[in-house]
Amino acid sequence: MSVYAEDGWRGGVRRMTARPANAHQARLLHLLRDQGPNSRAQLGDQVDLSRSKLAVEVDRLLETGLVVADGLAASRGGRRSHNIRLAPTLRFLGVDIGATSVDVAVTNAELEVLGHLTQPMDVREGPVAVFEQVLALAAKLKDSGLAEGFDGAGIGVPGPVRFPEGVPVAPPIMPGWDGFPVREALSQELGCPVMVDNDVNLMALGEQHAGVARTSQDFLCVKIGTGIGCGIVVGGAVYRGTTGSAGDIGHIQVEPDGRRCACGNAGCLEAYFGGAALARDAEDAAREGRSAALADRLAAAGALTASDVSVAASAGDATALELIKAGGTRTGQVIAGLVSFFNPGLVVIGGGVTGLGHTLLAAIRTQVYHQSLPLATGNLPIVLGELGPLAGVTGAARLISDHLFSPA
Amino acid sequence: MSVYAEDGWRGGVRRMTARPANAHQARLLHLLRDQGPNSRAQLGDQVDLSRSKLAVEVDRLLETGLVVADGLAASRGGRRSHNIRLAPTLRFLGVDIGATSVDVAVTNAELEVLGHLTQPMDVREGPVAVFEQVLALAAKLKDSGLAEGFDGAGIGVPGPVRFPEGVPVAPPIMPGWDGFPVREALSQELGCPVMVDNDVNLMALGEQHAGVARTSQDFLCVKIGTGIGCGIVVGGAVYRGTTGSAGDIGHIQVEPDGRRCACGNAGCLEAYFGGAALARDAEDAAREGRSAALADRLAAAGALTASDVSVAASAGDATALELIKAGGTRTGQVIAGLVSFFNPGLVVIGGGVTGLGHTLLAAIRTQVYHQSLPLATGNLPIVLGELGPLAGVTGAARLISDHLFSPA
Repeated sequence: MSVYAEDGWRGGVRRMTARPANAHQARLLHLLRDQGPNSRAQLGDQVDLSRSKLAVEVDRLLETGLVVADGLAASRGGRRSHNIRLAPTLRFLGVDIGATSVDVAVTNAELEVLGHLTQPMDVREGPVAVFEQVLALAAKLKDSGLAEGFDGAGIGVPGPVRFPEGVPVAPPIMPGWDGFPVREALSQELGCPVMVDNDVNLMALGEQHAGVARTSQDFLCVKIGTGIGCGIVVGGAVYRGTTGSAGDIGHIQVEPDGRRCACGNAGCLEAYFGGAALARDAEDAAREGRSAALADRLAAAGALTASDVSVAASAGDATALELIKAGGTRTGQVIAGLVSFFNPGLVVIGGGVTGLGHTLLAAIRTQVYHQSLPLATGNLPIVLGELGPLAGVTGAARLISDHLFSPA
Repeated sequence: MSVYAEDGWRGGVRRMTARPANAHQARLLHLLRDQGPNSRAQLGDQVDLSRSKLAVEVDRLLETGLVVADGLAASRGGRRSHNIRLAPTLRFLGVDIGATSVDVAVTNAELEVLGHLTQPMDVREGPVAVFEQVLALAAKLKDSGLAEGFDGAGIGVPGPVRFPEGVPVAPPIMPGWDGFPVREALSQELGCPVMVDNDVNLMALGEQHAGVARTSQDFLCVKIGTGIGCGIVVGGAVYRGTTGSAGDIGHIQVEPDGRRCACGNAGCLEAYFGGAALARDAEDAAREGRSAALADRLAAAGALTASDVSVAASAGDATALELIKAGGTRTGQVIAGLVSFFNPGLVVIGGGVTGLGHTLLAAIRTQVYHQSLPLATGNLPIVLGELGPLAGVTGAARLISDHLFSPA
């Protein structure tokens, strides 16, 4: 049980205690979430229900308080229909735990981000230390008046997750997290339902809900952060694989007998690119005198990050540009194979390293369009994500709302 | 319209003119297909219908003739229930067109192969010449008394297919087939409904229906024939990709700047392995004096095939064994990446080259278990297909039965 106040979380107030009673109610809640307030008449056009049965289901939802009346709708000729909407007091917490930072946001029932906080954090400190920071950020959002409490929370972690239980499994960059009951622990602390997923899957969900993948059913979302992972959406739903490790593309081999990787193998993509590899290569370049700009920054800061490479590249540093292009080409090599295999309708590139922007994107595109068969790339857009740091938290809110807006 | 007899196909008689009227009837037909004859009571346990509604749907199916009574069921205590089964006269035609051979089979409604014919054939002769052979084989099966006609036919072709229309698109090894209306043409000739799919997808469907993947929901089926392709099953259904080219793994790069491939790129898997590459490498080895066994066979036959390599390897020829191992390692390299990406529950290896058997399988397994992350391979079986040349034709019959056993 929680160590906090009686309602489960520092005085936070939960309102959403009901769940939809059947698939029709669930569908109505999803429509109201994704399309906003709407008239009964227009909702009726989208669900396969008679007018009288629709009225029954809407009335039941109004009784639960999940849905409220919202004024009269525009006339469609006959008697004017009432608009309904999701309860304006509903609040979801979206948490995106990365390798080196954490993002926390509060959304309304339509998953609009009302407030967003981010801070540096080292996931290797382990779940207890990380959750302390997450709870502090959530408290700050609440105290700012954006939420009186949270009705549910979605949590992303940078590693594979056994999805049904919400437990990380064998996460290579997260010592101390293996088997930790994230879902259960945070659910007790926050006093609300919690769902946990891999951070890359949540980025894909976010871009699908409110970003560049809004109209896509089958797409890939490649996240290039400290490491590299891929969210896979099939028929509109995230595909997680048999043991929750689908999309773990950072350890696909790009060079037989290549560079040693932290995973113990040789030639993995992550040995060549991602935030960690890029920083290391930049430091090597600085020390070897191949870039005055990077050497200056290294001397000033004592270490380099991907954003130092980005800054140097923007200033025209040839070595920095070369590093980004080489990394993009390696990433493109892997994506080209995935495109041949999966034949997606869209490839989204996201994550912190997208600060490298169009130089990176151009290198990836060049490689994919060169290497994959024309039939698979003919109408294939390869684009940057639209939501930036809000993709993960939006996806997290979507995850928990999908859960809560389904029959228990 | 057909140029043949009035009923559409050389006097063949179609019986299945009805389709299920709703999803309940469709579900009952699928259960009877996959589990065989059954009692009303036991079917009722598996469908979400009241006893009286079940009776209505079964009676309607009996009226259509799709389903017939089949004696009394074993007692469950009360009044004995009648067994029902699919009409024993229903016949499906399964056609598996490969690059160098064609398989044609007739099945009953439960998709058991009643008769099967195979013959060498060159897909490059184009659709007209190939269909002439297919129709001749189908006629032979009919004339043998196994079928009075066909109620539907499934057709597999060795290239990407625009599935909704049943039309091959840009098939690299099938000149003359691009855009050819296979579904429409064969439907007219055979006088029955036809569905067309990629041969590899049909192999996956076949192994799922009656082979090694019977209990798998998410698996990969890698077919190594003249070329190499991969069937992808997600949540029990074949995933075909945005333009029907999903699973086209023969052109994934295994060696940057490697061997030239027929597709115009360099370093593709198919440039290193598959029946065509193996035959070429074997001929090189024979000419360069690296294998007396292969040289003898080349001198005798004028050309080598994958099965020559298989025979030589079985007789202990070191070069032949080496060629198989090298090919398996290359294939394993690609599968390792797919396993990291897709996290399947099972990988099936099938196709003509599986005559190379356990040497090939061992090389593939070694590479995948070495190169993929342990979380993805922990419980991952990599096995040979069970159905051999019947996988494709069984999958073809399954494809058309899935179509006919669904509401129109």
